[in-house]
Amino acid sequence: MTQFWLWTGVIGMALGALVFGIGAHNAKNQRWQILFTLNFFICAIASGLYLMMALGQGVSIINGKPTYWIRYVTWFCSTPLLILDLTYLGRTNLPITGSLLGANAYMIVTGFLATLSPKPISYIWYVVSCVAYLATAYLLLNQYRKQATRNYPSAKNAFRRLLIVHLVIWTLYPIVWIFGTEGFKAFGSELETMFFTLLDLASKVGFGFLSLNTMHTLEQTRQPPKASSILLSR
Amino acid sequence: MTQFWLWTGVIGMALGALVFGIGAHNAKNQRWQILFTLNFFICAIASGLYLMMALGQGVSIINGKPTYWIRYVTWFCSTPLLILDLTYLGRTNLPITGSLLGANAYMIVTGFLATLSPKPISYIWYVVSCVAYLATAYLLLNQYRKQATRNYPSAKNAFRRLLIVHLVIWTLYPIVWIFGTEGFKAFGSELETMFFTLLDLASKVGFGFLSLNTMHTLEQTRQPPKASSILLSR
Amino acid sequence: MTQFWLWTGVIGMALGALVFGIGAHNAKNQRWQILFTLNFFICAIASGLYLMMALGQGVSIINGKPTYWIRYVTWFCSTPLLILDLTYLGRTNLPITGSLLGANAYMIVTGFLATLSPKPISYIWYVVSCVAYLATAYLLLNQYRKQATRNYPSAKNAFRRLLIVHLVIWTLYPIVWIFGTEGFKAFGSELETMFFTLLDLASKVGFGFLSLNTMHTLEQTRQPPKASSILLSR
Repeated sequence: MTQFWLWTGVIGMALGALVFGIGAHNAKNQRWQILFTLNFFICAIASGLYLMMALGQGVSIINGKPTYWIRYVTWFCSTPLLILDLTYLGRTNLPITGSLLGANAYMIVTGFLATLSPKPISYIWYVVSCVAYLATAYLLLNQYRKQATRNYPSAKNAFRRLLIVHLVIWTLYPIVWIFGTEGFKAFGSELETMFFTLLDLASKVGFGFLSLNTMHTLEQTRQPPKASSILLSR
Repeated sequence: MTQFWLWTGVIGMALGALVFGIGAHNAKNQRWQILFTLNFFICAIASGLYLMMALGQGVSIINGKPTYWIRYVTWFCSTPLLILDLTYLGRTNLPITGSLLGANAYMIVTGFLATLSPKPISYIWYVVSCVAYLATAYLLLNQYRKQATRNYPSAKNAFRRLLIVHLVIWTLYPIVWIFGTEGFKAFGSELETMFFTLLDLASKVGFGFLSLNTMHTLEQTRQPPKASSILLSR
Repeated sequence: MTQFWLWTGVIGMALGALVFGIGAHNAKNQRWQILFTLNFFICAIASGLYLMMALGQGVSIINGKPTYWIRYVTWFCSTPLLILDLTYLGRTNLPITGSLLGANAYMIVTGFLATLSPKPISYIWYVVSCVAYLATAYLLLNQYRKQATRNYPSAKNAFRRLLIVHLVIWTLYPIVWIFGTEGFKAFGSELETMFFTLLDLASKVGFGFLSLNTMHTLEQTRQPPKASSILLSR
């Protein structure tokens, strides 16, 4: 069954990359092209990750059990693009964009350390990683939302939905981790793989479509967004 | 003979770095300074790579034969600068610059996996890496060329020459790989080292001079390039 | 005693991160926010590094002695932010900012190789790393200082002090290295850890406060800085 879920990941992510790639190719303007391109690379990286795992690579016996450490390497590359999805839609300014990227990188690296370390040290890193995640959540719910709704006053609901979906999915990752093979062993390697595959598909392919939908809503509000000094929207 | 070619790489790249470094130091304006600086770092990174290999480092026995895996680590750092050479000259916009950098990184990482993996898995990654390379070639021949010739209508030939030289050299890398020690073993480690050294010198030192020459041509066309929303040309 | 110094590093850096993080949160404008955020992440990364070392991680027996190779991994992430501190204050242009970041990365990577390599190869990499450091020092004392004092003519003394403090601290690192366990063994692992901890606290927490003080001086000169085409000051 593990193999089934890994190949589901390969194919699902490849299909997502295909759709977003075609979208980027035929985008009607540069703003859509950037959003499609971000989503394309998020899915393309994830598809490569699942292909590695399906081929039996990127996995080692760590602390007495097979551990897919490669997940963290690819998350380190794909999660910043997901953050850029959000900040690009909301026209977030440079210091908050940088802080989100930094806190996210901190979360992934310390989560990687939690996975590599033996117990009980792994729990120390798990807590550090959760603190970094809470910092990103705090920034998203406060500074990010404030800037986004200031730039698009009539799209308040679109950003609320975007943030809720994002935060619900991302919060499930540390929950699966702590109940899974690295933590309390409430379920085994097979179910863990299934959960992570479903979460990855939801947070990458699913969230990609949601980001496109949000862009559509922003365009329909027909308000020219206010000038804002940001990195990516120019 | 392997050592001879490795030291040829060290010295050739160091000389290239010296020339481009002096050029950057004495550049007449910021636009030339950026181009010289990019070429300086491309050669400086490559010189460090060859010094490592000449000192017997960055090589391990992988799948039963000595493999210079360090090549891929340094290519991962130097090839994006080569892409920036191109996009800087052509004033490529942000989504295409990002797509070229992303596809290039994907090509290097999966090429690295092809080199680390045992057969036949190595061939799967080789094909994935070639697909990523074809994507960069497609972007260069279409979106890149269109934008460059729109920005510099009278420099069409200069960009055609730049792209042909770039694509011919870069296409030879996967050909050397597949016929060399990682693939069909049509030639041995020594010849492979020679081919890669010559290709590296051509694609880094040689291409660096070609990029300077292209910049000179662009300046002589004396057309103020049209305003274009790009990251690096400012 | 080694543990004492490592935990001193954890707590000192965490306190630094706390102060700078609160500063970023309550910054009165975006320019201060960016400076506080840079200093926050510098200290947060260093705090994670010291936590790893205090927990006995990131250290391996290399060339017959325990070596904290993890230092270089985290320096690779934190030192570019320190460079950005400087270039942000001085409104350095893109090619010099890029050159400083490139030379700094070269210095860290080759210093890492010096630490991993057996003697006498380690001395070759040590010399290469020192050359890269001299290049950053040259750029700071010439191009950087020229641009900074051109942008803030009345803050000449503030930049002189900033550069002297920066260069004195950073020059002590290779001196500790060459006299320490990797070089002439003039002192042992314990004293080396103490020296590096004190240097890290000075170059990260101490220098962070100095950068804030410099920003304060720049504001008090009350000259609107001249327009300058740079990446980060916008």
